[in-house]
Amino acid sequence: MSTERSGAPDTVRVNSRETREVSALERGLHYGDGLFETIACIAGRPRLLSLHLARLMRGCARLGISFTRTDELRSEVEALAQARRRTIVKVLVTRGPALERGYRVTGAEEATRITLRYGWPEENPAATRDGVRVRIGALRLAENPLLAGLKHCNRLEQVLARREWTDPGIAEALMFSSSGNLISGVMSNLFLIQGGRLRTPAVDRCGVAGVVREVVMREAPRAGIALEETRLTADDLAQATEVFLTSSLTGIRPVRALDGREWAPGPVTRALQERLAAVLTAGGDD
Amino acid sequence: MSTERSGAPDTVRVNSRETREVSALERGLHYGDGLFETIACIAGRPRLLSLHLARLMRGCARLGISFTRTDELRSEVEALAQARRRTIVKVLVTRGPALERGYRVTGAEEATRITLRYGWPEENPAATRDGVRVRIGALRLAENPLLAGLKHCNRLEQVLARREWTDPGIAEALMFSSSGNLISGVMSNLFLIQGGRLRTPAVDRCGVAGVVREVVMREAPRAGIALEETRLTADDLAQATEVFLTSSLTGIRPVRALDGREWAPGPVTRALQERLAAVLTAGGDD
Repeated sequence: MSTERSGAPDTVRVNSRETREVSALERGLHYGDGLFETIACIAGRPRLLSLHLARLMRGCARLGISFTRTDELRSEVEALAQARRRTIVKVLVTRGPALERGYRVTGAEEATRITLRYGWPEENPAATRDGVRVRIGALRLAENPLLAGLKHCNRLEQVLARREWTDPGIAEALMFSSSGNLISGVMSNLFLIQGGRLRTPAVDRCGVAGVVREVVMREAPRAGIALEETRLTADDLAQATEVFLTSSLTGIRPVRALDGREWAPGPVTRALQERLAAVLTAGGDD
Repeated sequence: MSTERSGAPDTVRVNSRETREVSALERGLHYGDGLFETIACIAGRPRLLSLHLARLMRGCARLGISFTRTDELRSEVEALAQARRRTIVKVLVTRGPALERGYRVTGAEEATRITLRYGWPEENPAATRDGVRVRIGALRLAENPLLAGLKHCNRLEQVLARREWTDPGIAEALMFSSSGNLISGVMSNLFLIQGGRLRTPAVDRCGVAGVVREVVMREAPRAGIALEETRLTADDLAQATEVFLTSSLTGIRPVRALDGREWAPGPVTRALQERLAAVLTAGGDD
């Protein structure tokens, strides 16, 4: 998405200290042994912060990373958000510097907390209004239920998938899993409307459980829209009457074009965009 | 393996400069966007250095990391090896500090080269002579042919797999892939002897193409031992008359026990241990 290009951060903090460096022994560096969150901050407030922090803590629990300073982290993100009208705060929590060589976790590691504040990218209201053009990604996402859903730092698949295209007119690639299921975009989650039902891929084998995905899944039934979290295939995509993407930074964006196929933004997408806007205005965390 | 515990490094260099810190913008930290090598240095010389560097460069080519300072890296590793009778040098090459937020590679990134020297762990001659006890890992390795074989820095699976046991009497876990094939140890490659043939799992869907694995695959035919790189299953393991593990630090180690099953180190394992010792004494890189 165009939101990828935000240049260098204006502020970097490691364990609350302003610095641009981390230990070369970081298990985050050696093994990608950590998690991250990318938080849109609007009008001085971090959007969906509680959902971001909850997902982060679920990830820490699943990876066995002892991180308890959630309150400090929350305050730090809130403070970073205040400085600007719109900004992006990225949070990383890693297992911390290695205490010995090798994969083994001693249990005495101290987690590292990194926050980075980036400028907001150029606005692209047309993408939200009219939709974006996407492609099908060639790379197939590997499947491991123990890592699925987490926003962990093992992201070589996304790095390689994002290298598949350079055309700035293409906003995203739709990704399939190694077993042939439709999963998500490289940087976003995916929803289809089929026969009036809203459907989104399960992320129990691969993919990331996005926070805007979570809000859409919570809000859809409240808006009277039947929702199904399930396995989806290329056939489902072909039959979809509406397709949209979700991400923390861009909210809900309709898909308007894919390999010669075109969609107009449909009524379910519009209803959910309006609902999401209301939720975000209200705070959105419950 | 016991070789995992080498404490903190006595020397760390980042792009040849002595420092213990790297940029907090490192794509290695954010995405595990890099590769590593762990090199045994004996009697002042890095073992199998050309094979390690060749694998590293193949990995850079596959990930699209522009790293050309191989000669400098070689000299640096050689210099680090000289100081001690036995030492371990770990090399990381990452895509470098991010030039913008997000997965996208701009192409202008400058790779980061990190070298770390660790003490040699306590010797364990019994492991090489009599063999080691192993378990079956519960985690199934995810499959992505684009990453298979590489010693890349997306190692959360190995971190989680190594957390499955704490018994110091167990040296390694044998890992299966998500599609049910026997692949490797967490930290080592695997060979079976079945009907007099030497068999090792293909690493084209997951797993790492180890450098000692490479030497064994080259030397076995020279020693008149038929070799097959193939898909292996739990049945093959059950039928094996000898089983051994390979790694850069520990060479060839027989497996002597697994879940109540026992093996004595057999003639093929012994022949290859002798052959490997001769190769390593001679330099081993061709």
